[in-house]
Amino acid sequence: MIDTEKLFAGEPRSIARAISSVESGAAGAAELMKVVFPKTGRAMIVGITGSPGAGKSSLVDKLALLYKDRGEKVGIVCVDPSSPFSGGAILGDRIRMATIGLDKNVFIRSMATRGNMGGLSRATVDAVAILDAAGFDKVIVETVGVGQDEVEIVKTADVSVVVLVPGMGDDIQAIKAGIMEIGDVFVINKADREGALRTQKELESLLSLAHRPDFWDPPIVKTVATESKGIEDLSKAIESYNDFQKQGDASLTRKHAIARWRLLGLLQERLLAEVLNKNGTNERLNKLSLEIAKKIKDPYTAVAEILKSE
Amino acid sequence: MIDTEKLFAGEPRSIARAISSVESGAAGAAELMKVVFPKTGRAMIVGITGSPGAGKSSLVDKLALLYKDRGEKVGIVCVDPSSPFSGGAILGDRIRMATIGLDKNVFIRSMATRGNMGGLSRATVDAVAILDAAGFDKVIVETVGVGQDEVEIVKTADVSVVVLVPGMGDDIQAIKAGIMEIGDVFVINKADREGALRTQKELESLLSLAHRPDFWDPPIVKTVATESKGIEDLSKAIESYNDFQKQGDASLTRKHAIARWRLLGLLQERLLAEVLNKNGTNERLNKLSLEIAKKIKDPYTAVAEILKSE
Repeated sequence: MIDTEKLFAGEPRSIARAISSVESGAAGAAELMKVVFPKTGRAMIVGITGSPGAGKSSLVDKLALLYKDRGEKVGIVCVDPSSPFSGGAILGDRIRMATIGLDKNVFIRSMATRGNMGGLSRATVDAVAILDAAGFDKVIVETVGVGQDEVEIVKTADVSVVVLVPGMGDDIQAIKAGIMEIGDVFVINKADREGALRTQKELESLLSLAHRPDFWDPPIVKTVATESKGIEDLSKAIESYNDFQKQGDASLTRKHAIARWRLLGLLQERLLAEVLNKNGTNERLNKLSLEIAKKIKDPYTAVAEILKSE
Repeated sequence: MIDTEKLFAGEPRSIARAISSVESGAAGAAELMKVVFPKTGRAMIVGITGSPGAGKSSLVDKLALLYKDRGEKVGIVCVDPSSPFSGGAILGDRIRMATIGLDKNVFIRSMATRGNMGGLSRATVDAVAILDAAGFDKVIVETVGVGQDEVEIVKTADVSVVVLVPGMGDDIQAIKAGIMEIGDVFVINKADREGALRTQKELESLLSLAHRPDFWDPPIVKTVATESKGIEDLSKAIESYNDFQKQGDASLTRKHAIARWRLLGLLQERLLAEVLNKNGTNERLNKLSLEIAKKIKDPYTAVAEILKSE
């Protein structure tokens, strides 16, 4: 049982337990989130995405340090699809805590995937809500990679930051306009590298083609995270969009869309769990999937069989 | 209605229609896949992943060209989470078809995501099965990014190729051991760039730490895709793993795990669709998500309400 009084007072151990509970989908998780939810809405949620090698971790760490130096409480939630294989996440967290300085005002947590169908997005959004309710002023959600789930997670933030590095513009894939439309703020990190200006020009011309429904003109910030350069500018750019999005109806429209996405994800997870929790389902799934592997049965017929017996 | 006779004869228009059908989750898609499934298992499925900017598209195009020149039929399925925003996928397909040369022996298709909860993975795996059944000798599945879904998709291939580029090794994220365990074959593309040797050394030391249950020692291939260098070596490395994995029990264990994952994904998609297809559910979801956005209700309570009325 999680002590919600301690949780709302920001006690690190209670926070860690609460996040583990939503991550594992433990029995009490739904009850916990019902209590957590009304306490949310105070923190500013910053989503940061970009491809591996863009230097996101350094950037996030430096941004967190800046917030911390201002006397704010900062939570960091990292989503890394590769972590379940290797325990790499835990190691990473330790390295990063040493960088930022471990105290009550900073909380870092990597989310493990455990291969749970779609559950990662829900658990991540829940973890952010927990930190929000626990009194953190800023919550940074960092996603490694630009996968579908990762994009959805970043879209739930108040401000989404897309991190690029010089020299990636030469690949058609990297300059897909889609990624552009996710970013409220763009960062060209490692901006001391060759090609930074070219990347900026390309980005500017791509952004001039994009049509945002809210008419926001996303700023481009140049940083060298390893040398702490440009972090102040980044924080200003983030705040400027946060102020902007709070005005007008766009904010509620966005929140409505996010709520719908969360609701569908949670519903889907629950529906599957209901089926899987029935006695014998696991054995049946094993049997059916073996038949599929041996090409005795096709997946669609197998699913129809499971559904018919519901 | 899709003409399965034409589909199995490899007629491009029927293939395109069949893939659109599974992509949109059209009514006939399940029936189609029941017919398609028994015809699969002949093609060699190659999954290729890596981060944006690694030059995957060029590499895939050159590999496809090599197979084509050998007189084989090649299908390419691309998964790009950013495409729905911008129609970038269609543009990309056109550029690539011009490169490889459009004829009956090459088929390229980008999968759109449309924000459908988890449906992309299922649709992609179905598209691969369709190309397999349509008589393609090689099917290359290319995923942009390294998200959770993308990793799962690549794992369904017979051979998984992870593409790296020099100079990414300086980031903790890029060298997460997890990504390493996905790859049956590794490619260092843009190998004429500075740092290629360092990346190779780092990769070798990471691979020496990894413990594969099948004792396979993943080869590292250096390529310069834009200059068609190393593509022959890559094809040999892919074939060597394909030959290897066909021996022994590992193949069935792997196929069993893939089948289970497919079955769960399909089941989840169907369960949600059953709920959503009921009259009034859509309006109700809109109402509930607006209440969540306004913090009148929490998502868990909302889902419990929907489930109770089932």
